[in-house]
Amino acid sequence: MDSYVLDLAKRRKTTRRFSSRPIDLKQVIAALEAACQAPSGANSQPWRFLIVTDPKVKKRVREACENGEKAFYSKVKGELGKWLLAKGLNWQKPFLEEAPVLVLIFSETKAPYAIQSAWLAIGHILLALEESGLGTMTYTPSITREVTEEIDLPKGFRLEAILPVGISVDEKPKEPKFGLRQVAYLNFWGHRLDATALLSGTVSRQPS
Amino acid sequence: MDSYVLDLAKRRKTTRRFSSRPIDLKQVIAALEAACQAPSGANSQPWRFLIVTDPKVKKRVREACENGEKAFYSKVKGELGKWLLAKGLNWQKPFLEEAPVLVLIFSETKAPYAIQSAWLAIGHILLALEESGLGTMTYTPSITREVTEEIDLPKGFRLEAILPVGISVDEKPKEPKFGLRQVAYLNFWGHRLDATALLSGTVSRQPS
Repeated sequence: MDSYVLDLAKRRKTTRRFSSRPIDLKQVIAALEAACQAPSGANSQPWRFLIVTDPKVKKRVREACENGEKAFYSKVKGELGKWLLAKGLNWQKPFLEEAPVLVLIFSETKAPYAIQSAWLAIGHILLALEESGLGTMTYTPSITREVTEEIDLPKGFRLEAILPVGISVDEKPKEPKFGLRQVAYLNFWGHRLDATALLSGTVSRQPS
Repeated sequence: MDSYVLDLAKRRKTTRRFSSRPIDLKQVIAALEAACQAPSGANSQPWRFLIVTDPKVKKRVREACENGEKAFYSKVKGELGKWLLAKGLNWQKPFLEEAPVLVLIFSETKAPYAIQSAWLAIGHILLALEESGLGTMTYTPSITREVTEEIDLPKGFRLEAILPVGISVDEKPKEPKFGLRQVAYLNFWGHRLDATALLSGTVSRQPS
């Protein structure tokens, strides 16, 4: 049997379309409390959260993000440009208004490992929201300046991501994922995990 | 009642001292499978994992890390230096040999949001290991060059963290953490979550 965490991780998928049904803010708060328990560089806890439920604020955040996306999409090319086109993504971000709640996540720029710590904490949030049956995604605005001005973000903080949160009505399947065999090695780089390793019993701490 | 994920997040603490008892590699593999299910920039899945069980490799990794730490600790100062001193931390990293398993985590440097994606995945790993009753920590070598040379890391990958994994015999309590009230705002930066917000019922998607 899978572990519960693995089961949540497998179920979770990116949600870009949300129902207008209201959600229980307590579930969002529980997910952020899980984030607050994460480790961080020198325990600096360099995360800050702005929970947005006010439709006027959501609208302003959406507009600021979309202005940045228009500038970004007018220039994007290469592999990323191809991927975005193939996925049907463009500058429009209606989920920023459609989701009943937005969670903006910031890092304190001078803290050690600030970005790493904030994103590790986001890893906790996603699983906690999945457990609550709520959909979300980690939206990273391509250009953040206008957003941070709109919300009067003080100096010393960086916008890492915006998580729209709500009941999913997104019917797109989960993106396919590499198996561990494709991304994990055993003891030496390039030495792939094989069935023996996957099924083997225990490994002990042996004197070398 | 807390959610299960929140409960795991609360229980989890940094483990620096490990029992020599063997562990079931399948639990480590399940935790990495949870990581593989995480979202990533343009679904690039820019994470790679090197599971180390061979004592000779662990010893070489430890030595390479400690050489870097000696250089780092000879120069560190400021707030971080004070914090390290107060916590009794120094260049010695015995857990890199004492833990029965090490998991080295890498990001693919050219992938979009590579660091962010790898650390979000680490957030999944920590909760999955906690569920299995295994201790770990996110050790970030201060200087990675000698480590990456030792393991013949190809160009294009960056060492993000080393997770020693095993049965905890670390009796230090969990570091104190900020409550959500200290790090979360509602609708406007600086507008702290109050008891009303924490206990309030639902928020709906209203037309603005």
